[in-house]
Amino acid sequence: MTANKTPVRRSAAAPNQADGDPAGSRAAILAAARAEFAVHGLTGARVNTIASRAGVNKQLIYYYFGNKDGLYRSALETVYAEIRTQERSLNLGQMQPVAAMESLIGFSFDYLSQHPDFIGLLNHENAAGARHVRDSDAIRDTNSPLIELIAQTLARGIKARVFRLGVDPVEFYISVAGMSYFFFSNRLTLSSIFGRDLGAADAVAAYRRHVVAFAMAGLRP
Amino acid sequence: MTANKTPVRRSAAAPNQADGDPAGSRAAILAAARAEFAVHGLTGARVNTIASRAGVNKQLIYYYFGNKDGLYRSALETVYAEIRTQERSLNLGQMQPVAAMESLIGFSFDYLSQHPDFIGLLNHENAAGARHVRDSDAIRDTNSPLIELIAQTLARGIKARVFRLGVDPVEFYISVAGMSYFFFSNRLTLSSIFGRDLGAADAVAAYRRHVVAFAMAGLRP
Repeated sequence: MTANKTPVRRSAAAPNQADGDPAGSRAAILAAARAEFAVHGLTGARVNTIASRAGVNKQLIYYYFGNKDGLYRSALETVYAEIRTQERSLNLGQMQPVAAMESLIGFSFDYLSQHPDFIGLLNHENAAGARHVRDSDAIRDTNSPLIELIAQTLARGIKARVFRLGVDPVEFYISVAGMSYFFFSNRLTLSSIFGRDLGAADAVAAYRRHVVAFAMAGLRP
Repeated sequence: MTANKTPVRRSAAAPNQADGDPAGSRAAILAAARAEFAVHGLTGARVNTIASRAGVNKQLIYYYFGNKDGLYRSALETVYAEIRTQERSLNLGQMQPVAAMESLIGFSFDYLSQHPDFIGLLNHENAAGARHVRDSDAIRDTNSPLIELIAQTLARGIKARVFRLGVDPVEFYISVAGMSYFFFSNRLTLSSIFGRDLGAADAVAAYRRHVVAFAMAGLRP
């Protein structure tokens, strides 16, 4: 149940090829892994494909990540860390409550718009029982400051009489993320059943405006 | 591009076994198909498993649905028809706008809560390119009255000054459905990252209250 702080080595042997750029190689492997796991999940993904796309020897993947399972967990941890790092860089704590919430809602939409791999990874992880997220202390530790920040922002907004009482920060986050997540994850079926191309740039921009306006109206006293 | 109104027969031959209850057999096959396709998608699902769970001969499935593809399309059409039929039975047109919207939002939540197979089917269909939903006139025809009904309810609410102007019915439906869909589809990862069991009955009831309150607040003038 502890996080994997250092790479698990399947053997103490060095990789077959020299790796003059460990950080670059790890980043290339993780980028290729995110794309492959997002489409095929842990079970369906192939380490050969990841190695080929990353331009590295398969042995190097085992050297850095131990096995496919370790690589998958690192890919998930990397994605969660990335989204939370970008949220922190919004500096919501320094903004007025209304502006802070608008920024957070817009960011949540934009991140999902730009990272379809995150949606694929999460869909597969949930379908498979979410064991890797559950077992990662690193992922849980990454997420708790976000809820703390939302709670503080809600409290500041209540004090300033711009937000209503009784909104739970976790429920708020899930509902706001869900409005955006569902739009992107189910875009193809939704476009078909409603006869509207929700992949078109103007439809995406219009829905972003709707989500921000709808969620902000939902917070008003 | 036309809907499959009558069963496509792979051959004119009658099934090997006598079928004294065609409606019952079809319903049993479709129920087993929904469960199997929800977990494994079109590609991964096995007709043998569906036949076995439905308690019928595999030949009977081919007799009624033509092939695995035809069975999959019928399963999708059945699920969409079911949810839209239940929505119609709410009789939203006979209710005051606020009560009508509360009923629709609550129903959308409850249906997803009670039908995890719908979420599995849609996730697989979207991951596979949504070809079957796109090619089904029956599914599109089923959905357009819903949007018409939401548009009428929003208009009645604006006239009664209980809803604000400028809410698009399709965007409203997607955002409300998304709040509930994401909660159930991603329940396992969300429970882990926020350290809260979102499968517990009290957590589900609390989130339902949040969704209704949040969405209704989002409509206020």
